[in-house]
Amino acid sequence: MNQEIISTLLKKLRVVNPLIHNITNVVVTNFTANGLLSLGASPVMAYAAEEVADMAKIAGALVLNIGTLNSTVVESMIIAGKSANEHGVPVIFDPVGAGATSYRTETAKKMMNEVKISVLRGNAAEIANVAGYQWEIKGVDAGHSNGNTVELAILTAKKLNTVVVITGKDDVISDGETTYVVHNGHPLLTKVTGTGCLLTSVIGAFAAIEKDFVLASTAALVYYGIVAEIAADKTAHEGPGSFQIELLNQLALVSNDEIVKYGNVEKIEQV
Amino acid sequence: MNQEIISTLLKKLRVVNPLIHNITNVVVTNFTANGLLSLGASPVMAYAAEEVADMAKIAGALVLNIGTLNSTVVESMIIAGKSANEHGVPVIFDPVGAGATSYRTETAKKMMNEVKISVLRGNAAEIANVAGYQWEIKGVDAGHSNGNTVELAILTAKKLNTVVVITGKDDVISDGETTYVVHNGHPLLTKVTGTGCLLTSVIGAFAAIEKDFVLASTAALVYYGIVAEIAADKTAHEGPGSFQIELLNQLALVSNDEIVKYGNVEKIEQV
Amino acid sequence: MNQEIISTLLKKLRVVNPLIHNITNVVVTNFTANGLLSLGASPVMAYAAEEVADMAKIAGALVLNIGTLNSTVVESMIIAGKSANEHGVPVIFDPVGAGATSYRTETAKKMMNEVKISVLRGNAAEIANVAGYQWEIKGVDAGHSNGNTVELAILTAKKLNTVVVITGKDDVISDGETTYVVHNGHPLLTKVTGTGCLLTSVIGAFAAIEKDFVLASTAALVYYGIVAEIAADKTAHEGPGSFQIELLNQLALVSNDEIVKYGNVEKIEQV
Repeated sequence: MNQEIISTLLKKLRVVNPLIHNITNVVVTNFTANGLLSLGASPVMAYAAEEVADMAKIAGALVLNIGTLNSTVVESMIIAGKSANEHGVPVIFDPVGAGATSYRTETAKKMMNEVKISVLRGNAAEIANVAGYQWEIKGVDAGHSNGNTVELAILTAKKLNTVVVITGKDDVISDGETTYVVHNGHPLLTKVTGTGCLLTSVIGAFAAIEKDFVLASTAALVYYGIVAEIAADKTAHEGPGSFQIELLNQLALVSNDEIVKYGNVEKIEQV
Repeated sequence: MNQEIISTLLKKLRVVNPLIHNITNVVVTNFTANGLLSLGASPVMAYAAEEVADMAKIAGALVLNIGTLNSTVVESMIIAGKSANEHGVPVIFDPVGAGATSYRTETAKKMMNEVKISVLRGNAAEIANVAGYQWEIKGVDAGHSNGNTVELAILTAKKLNTVVVITGKDDVISDGETTYVVHNGHPLLTKVTGTGCLLTSVIGAFAAIEKDFVLASTAALVYYGIVAEIAADKTAHEGPGSFQIELLNQLALVSNDEIVKYGNVEKIEQV
Repeated sequence: MNQEIISTLLKKLRVVNPLIHNITNVVVTNFTANGLLSLGASPVMAYAAEEVADMAKIAGALVLNIGTLNSTVVESMIIAGKSANEHGVPVIFDPVGAGATSYRTETAKKMMNEVKISVLRGNAAEIANVAGYQWEIKGVDAGHSNGNTVELAILTAKKLNTVVVITGKDDVISDGETTYVVHNGHPLLTKVTGTGCLLTSVIGAFAAIEKDFVLASTAALVYYGIVAEIAADKTAHEGPGSFQIELLNQLALVSNDEIVKYGNVEKIEQV
């Protein structure tokens, strides 16, 4: 991928300032909203069944996240998702903790059945559990496994007919035909809560301005990964509190030059 | 306004350490509580219908915010509001996103009808929508408009019989008779989520110790605006993450000298 | 207490990386999760009645916090608590605001009756209200009192048959037989929301790896107190925003040498 495409998308995102409707968990609302604002998008959180259809249809993207799900919010997600589908608004889904409890796994599967999902984003365990493959999970964090995440992404994308993003040491993006691996990112991301959830919303922001969702997702991952690398570098020896704040700073600050210089993405040749 | 009044009110606030009962949205709870603590107030969040009347009546002020409203929390807001009214506790209302969905607009109007509101605080679009005037809105952020916010504040204050605070590039405070414009503040406030919601709670803290709500609101806006200016100055080139943290710092640190030196408030002569 | 025990427990905690299931209030979710991650534990928040039994039984500890309670979440807490009891998972309970409203007091007492609590953690007013003793409270903060917190802790531990932790200027830990007072900590902890709630979760993390809950709680309090002291020292003159972030940093950074050097804990001889 020509990394100048990523710069171009980022510039467009900041001009358009897309409204991103998030129905997300209570742990990450503040961090997600601040991350989207730093990036250059306009976040809104709205949960009530009475209004989610109205909000989703005027949004540039809808982000659904089941991190602290309950039956009421799941109902709202489905109403919002159907409204988004009807009005051509991309829906990004983060199946947090799928596999950790059967309630999460079943809810995630229900969401895939009832709403047309544009991009499904999770760690390998979550994606495997949504797709019905074997993979271990601990709480809401990925288990350790040497499974082939490229294969998992391709299989899941084909099976569920969506773009799949699997994040981990390396990140994989696939629609079953075109597949990228992004090598950007930093281990400190696992020491701050909600960095995966925010990434899902960042993918939403890129999907709001680029209808090729493989491209949009890949651009989001490269940018976010570079942001994390620079934030980690600037806060070396300071700890995860400082890293969290610097991540918000760098979402606003990383330059086009840095994208071109540090972007590390590989196209996978499928056989 | 003699800016030493603001210093005097702030000193009083810190001696009294008023209990501020917030029924607010899930995005800003933490930031609001920390901002109130930094300022010198004592925040409490309580939402359950079973207890909000008890909590509101012992509070110095009640702050209602519909940023992530649902039918259950709206019911609690009305119970709390009626209890506050009955016990002489000022009620500050932030109609987040009024105009963005009809559910928010109708809920905001219902709140104005069922609870006596001491201060109504929003951006121009939200205030106009609550009052039934035309104004554009995008999500929960103000639309762009060249409308006359001073006129809007005065008309709304008279129509709804409350003190109105409209925030934006300049801030307007009016009860329909006495009107101030505050020129303090900083554009970075729009890059951090919940800065408007926290301001509403800061108004609550001043209203808890000063029953002239025009004066209390104006003092709150001048102080908050100066806090933002100094925080922006101290974090120049660092980004919105650092600004957010410095805002919390400066809420505790801004001195009486700085209030007198930087306060920029103008009394409007009405014709 | 030999302070090298604390280092040893901390090392074990970081190797085990225990899963801590929190059912906590909406103000502190993010801060709690980040604090646990910094410490070296693995936080999960799950609230739905449909899944809390499943999540609690795989956790290393369950932390219940009624800071923004409602009837739905209280029901989930009891389901989760019973599941934890059944599977030998320690339950840590933080009765936020007990005494401030009768709903909180009654709910806290109900929790003590229906769930076997391993450690009860609160300020003096909260603990006294749960145990049915007289103590004043203001909102969710402790009132001022010269009551004897050591006596209160011992009496409550015997009466309620649990380990009691009372935090304040000094912290007391007692099971009714063995009692410690910890002199670590810093007044700035009262200027950041959720520092008590996070402490409760940190006790949960130590309880997950040490079944002597007096020892586990004392280690947690000493460590947390030292973290606060160092964070306050590093952010002197910066304000509570910076202190909050440095607290998250130091939870990851405080060394074994610092624990031995700064730990200040006293065993109380009972008569």
